[in-house]
Amino acid sequence: MPTVGVIGGGQLARMMQPAAIALGIDIKVFAEQEGSSAHYATTQVGDYTNYDQLASFAATVDVVTFDHEHVPLTILEKLIANKVKIRPGPAALHFAQNKLAMRQALTEMGLPVPIWTAAKSSAEISRFIAENGPEIVVKTPIGGYDGKGVRVISQASEVADWLEAIDNYGGELLCEQKVPFVRELAQLVARNPSGNLRAWDTVQTVQKNGVCSEVIAPAPGPVDSHAAKEIANKIAHGLDVVGVMAVEIFETASGELLVNELAMRPHNSGHFSIEGSITSQFEQHLRAVLDLPLGDTALMNEGSVMVNLFGVDSENGFVENYGAAMAKFPELKFHSYQKAPRPGRKMGHITAVGENHLELLAACHEAAELIYQTGLRLE
Amino acid sequence: MPTVGVIGGGQLARMMQPAAIALGIDIKVFAEQEGSSAHYATTQVGDYTNYDQLASFAATVDVVTFDHEHVPLTILEKLIANKVKIRPGPAALHFAQNKLAMRQALTEMGLPVPIWTAAKSSAEISRFIAENGPEIVVKTPIGGYDGKGVRVISQASEVADWLEAIDNYGGELLCEQKVPFVRELAQLVARNPSGNLRAWDTVQTVQKNGVCSEVIAPAPGPVDSHAAKEIANKIAHGLDVVGVMAVEIFETASGELLVNELAMRPHNSGHFSIEGSITSQFEQHLRAVLDLPLGDTALMNEGSVMVNLFGVDSENGFVENYGAAMAKFPELKFHSYQKAPRPGRKMGHITAVGENHLELLAACHEAAELIYQTGLRLE
Repeated sequence: MPTVGVIGGGQLARMMQPAAIALGIDIKVFAEQEGSSAHYATTQVGDYTNYDQLASFAATVDVVTFDHEHVPLTILEKLIANKVKIRPGPAALHFAQNKLAMRQALTEMGLPVPIWTAAKSSAEISRFIAENGPEIVVKTPIGGYDGKGVRVISQASEVADWLEAIDNYGGELLCEQKVPFVRELAQLVARNPSGNLRAWDTVQTVQKNGVCSEVIAPAPGPVDSHAAKEIANKIAHGLDVVGVMAVEIFETASGELLVNELAMRPHNSGHFSIEGSITSQFEQHLRAVLDLPLGDTALMNEGSVMVNLFGVDSENGFVENYGAAMAKFPELKFHSYQKAPRPGRKMGHITAVGENHLELLAACHEAAELIYQTGLRLE
Repeated sequence: MPTVGVIGGGQLARMMQPAAIALGIDIKVFAEQEGSSAHYATTQVGDYTNYDQLASFAATVDVVTFDHEHVPLTILEKLIANKVKIRPGPAALHFAQNKLAMRQALTEMGLPVPIWTAAKSSAEISRFIAENGPEIVVKTPIGGYDGKGVRVISQASEVADWLEAIDNYGGELLCEQKVPFVRELAQLVARNPSGNLRAWDTVQTVQKNGVCSEVIAPAPGPVDSHAAKEIANKIAHGLDVVGVMAVEIFETASGELLVNELAMRPHNSGHFSIEGSITSQFEQHLRAVLDLPLGDTALMNEGSVMVNLFGVDSENGFVENYGAAMAKFPELKFHSYQKAPRPGRKMGHITAVGENHLELLAACHEAAELIYQTGLRLE
């Protein structure tokens, strides 16, 4: 098997490693710092905006892929010019890095998106508010993640700081209607360079403070899963995505689906698949970037839920305190990313597999509570 | 989480690593050589019969466990005297290392075993053949594995070489009746130092040339699973086993169960549990040696089968040639141990999860055949 190189040492790189070990694939990680979440597989520590460092890393692997989408495209293009295989490639990543480019491309493909416009000035934003308000969503086209770079506003002055520094964001802001959604969904799909596509069941995601906090697979109740998969497949094919892609989707009261965001890598909405699906998103991503045939994405059981564990403060390493939760819930799967704790930081997650979503969620939440309590008590 | 140290760099140590990564447990491996199957986690290479080397390894971990049962007990006892935590401990491992001691202990516990005796001489063996023949099984009490150290004989002269070198085997050979079994079963159980016990479903194992070649979970047809679990629990408790233990069992035409062999570590008969069970034997072993609460051992689905992949010759690295098999069988789980190929060597395995054992086995066998063919073609 060839060697896969992953840029970024976060939990996504970490969770690719068990899949690599099973398949007999070698994996190497280029991390930003020592002791990252993916430290077991880290072979180089450096700056992912430095061409020479990435080139020396790329020389040790057969294909380069990503834990995050922040590597500058110009660097990736230079690596490709020097015969490095990058998957997904910069032409696709462009649309994950730049939300304006993404909205433009999806609109051109005829896919359903919120009403949007690009705005350079306070006047343009005010006009969009007048037409689509009273509240709208403004996003910085580049550099946002986990709720950062997103604001709900009713007056242009609320993004005065962004307008002042607009050159940092590519010269324009993205204004979107505030979609009256009833819930959020995510559609995971994988594509390999040969063009094979495999989609998982459409899932429901629950966000807290702009960050994914739980996932329910499959999305309960009536859901137009066929439309969700068609949207994801069209995007994956149309943008020449290679690897796993997550499409974050708004569902409106009428059941209409609107594309919110794209992620071109394994995604929090797919962590359930480690135990919940025949092929996990991490194994599938490795298969895809190596152009191996994709695996079956069917659920292993009736369904699955995933609940994230967040850092409480900078002191406690609470996700290591599993004892009480494990004793009470032998059926739950506990994951720690071995990250330094910070308030609100994703530290790990819990997955439950079974039929009754409400019972599964209740178990995960109670287990999470036990972990938080133990962690705080032991501090 | 504390750090688990594993002595031995084989596929069992390798397969503990994905479980460790999920749980956030650090794992370090003491391997016999560079480039072993567990190379990702190897932190020291050396001789497991050398006290000083093991002591320096043990100083880097919180608890020591095993990929194999070959570490001399005197060395383990000396480590314990120097405050090293060894799980399972030498008092338990003694019964996995010495088949005569195991037969003696199980007989004293009133557990069902084949008729057996210890024999020092040709005359004693001949007498046992006269009473229990025409064929009997002779085993070297120590040092055997995967069919090595086991012979079916009808005349004492067939083990003349063993009798001549009898001091190498502890001074006695183990003679056993050749049990007229209809099939072989295995009962996996895990026990932690607090005394918690968890057994998986009883499985059927199929051997080829004395080596496990496939496993069916749960064992199909009528099987006295209650008796199998009771036997395994009694042994685990009675011998103070910590970690996973496999009990290999003969089933006779009347459904009677007789204990064949013991393994005090994760075992080939439990590989199905990686995908097939809520808690895999590898995760459970880590939980057990760390005295964490044990996980649920229920099947994820109706059932599961596992088929081993064996080395064909010393040239081909065939287990890396998954393409055709993956394309035809997207629902199968492929495992490579990244070992140097040798004829008959366990190189990897394939697992299928589902209801119909015959269909699952047929798929695994056809996939294995595709891998063998591709491997040979590419050579």
